Amino acid sequence: MSIQAVVLLSGGADSVTCLAWAVKEQGLSCLALSFDYGQTHQWEIQAARRAAESFRVPHRTARLDPSLFSASALTGGSPIPKGRTSGEIGRGIPSTYVPARNLVFLSLAAALAETLGAETLVIGVNALDYSGYPDCRPEFLRAFEETLRVGTRSGVEGRPPLVEAPLLEMKKAEIFLLGTRLGVDYSLTVSCYDADDQGRACGACDACLLRARGFREAGLPDPTRYKPGVTPPSRGSSL
Amino acid sequence: MSIQAVVLLSGGADSVTCLAWAVKEQGLSCLALSFDYGQTHQWEIQAARRAAESFRVPHRTARLDPSLFSASALTGGSPIPKGRTSGEIGRGIPSTYVPARNLVFLSLAAALAETLGAETLVIGVNALDYSGYPDCRPEFLRAFEETLRVGTRSGVEGRPPLVEAPLLEMKKAEIFLLGTRLGVDYSLTVSCYDADDQGRACGACDACLLRARGFREAGLPDPTRYKPGVTPPSRGSSL
Repeated sequence: MSIQAVVLLSGGADSVTCLAWAVKEQGLSCLALSFDYGQTHQWEIQAARRAAESFRVPHRTARLDPSLFSASALTGGSPIPKGRTSGEIGRGIPSTYVPARNLVFLSLAAALAETLGAETLVIGVNALDYSGYPDCRPEFLRAFEETLRVGTRSGVEGRPPLVEAPLLEMKKAEIFLLGTRLGVDYSLTVSCYDADDQGRACGACDACLLRARGFREAGLPDPTRYKPGVTPPSRGSSL
Repeated sequence: MSIQAVVLLSGGADSVTCLAWAVKEQGLSCLALSFDYGQTHQWEIQAARRAAESFRVPHRTARLDPSLFSASALTGGSPIPKGRTSGEIGRGIPSTYVPARNLVFLSLAAALAETLGAETLVIGVNALDYSGYPDCRPEFLRAFEETLRVGTRSGVEGRPPLVEAPLLEMKKAEIFLLGTRLGVDYSLTVSCYDADDQGRACGACDACLLRARGFREAGLPDPTRYKPGVTPPSRGSSL
């Protein structure tokens, strides 16, 4: 069967929910695409592979030269901020920002989509419960779509790939409710910016705090596996 | 010295001319960036390295998974068209189009530029004597700049990288006159889509025909090394 959608899959909760949405809700024949760019949380790539397997979707991991991105805390450039409050998260761009990351990921996904004849790109960006990255905002996605419209063969021929961001305007709790309804096993996903080599979460970075609050607000049990000695942020969090 | 500009360097005549322009005419401290994406003309990467050396510029080659781009004649997907006339070249998008190539290259260059703190990207696209690729046109570059403005930290903070395309509106002959004035040795550059393993040109693909016409119109000797038995297109070409 030909591939209809290329789904960017980091292995975090949002991208796995997107995959479930594309497969189960939209009925699209998908290919999941992950990138290995030297992120310190390599465990994400294993999580992505398992999530793709769980939805019976082919999965590809493309390597990217880590030195192209080495200015970020996520690639070892500086410490990952911990224990920030909800007033701090999303205000300004944090040190976990990776230069032009979603632009690079979407560009490579667009190349692959055009190669395969797929007409949809799916990305799990979210502009509500998010860390404040500029490349998670609707204005970025609109500008990128326009770039595809004028800069690719399919765009010039009147079939630019559609960039779907189904989580863009959703609260984290809504994302978890959607994914749970569609069969996502969130214990397989890793959101933490500082997970250990078994994918256990730190419980203190922005991603952990947003995730824990999401489960709490959704009224769902938090299935996250935390590092030994970590108090789950759902109990007594600053958020 | 810090890097001010990331110059995309394929090793072809246009990108080497851009490098000369950035170094000699603009006085920028440059880093040259090449990509190895499984193009059949691997010889280009060696040409890029030698060109960077000749201008004493640091050079980096990043590998990209070839399967992301495998729909193009340049990566072995279909035959490279030969012997086309000037009326045919640039009309429609040829089979040598590589899906989203300049978008991917510029995105990775933008990531590296932001990592290094460089404020300029330089790309040797040309919308006059060109093969008809959509990602060589000014509307593509404008849309891409807008994407950087809204989708990167430096853009949001008011310093989006400037995308310089100094050859955009130049005829091939003007490009060769500019580069010759700035000390480019065009015998080191390889433009051919079907060069052999010594970088010798086929004399019949679009790139060879446009290049030969450029030297002829510039009144410069054509220093291109052709494969044995090839009649240089400057003598008796269809263009």
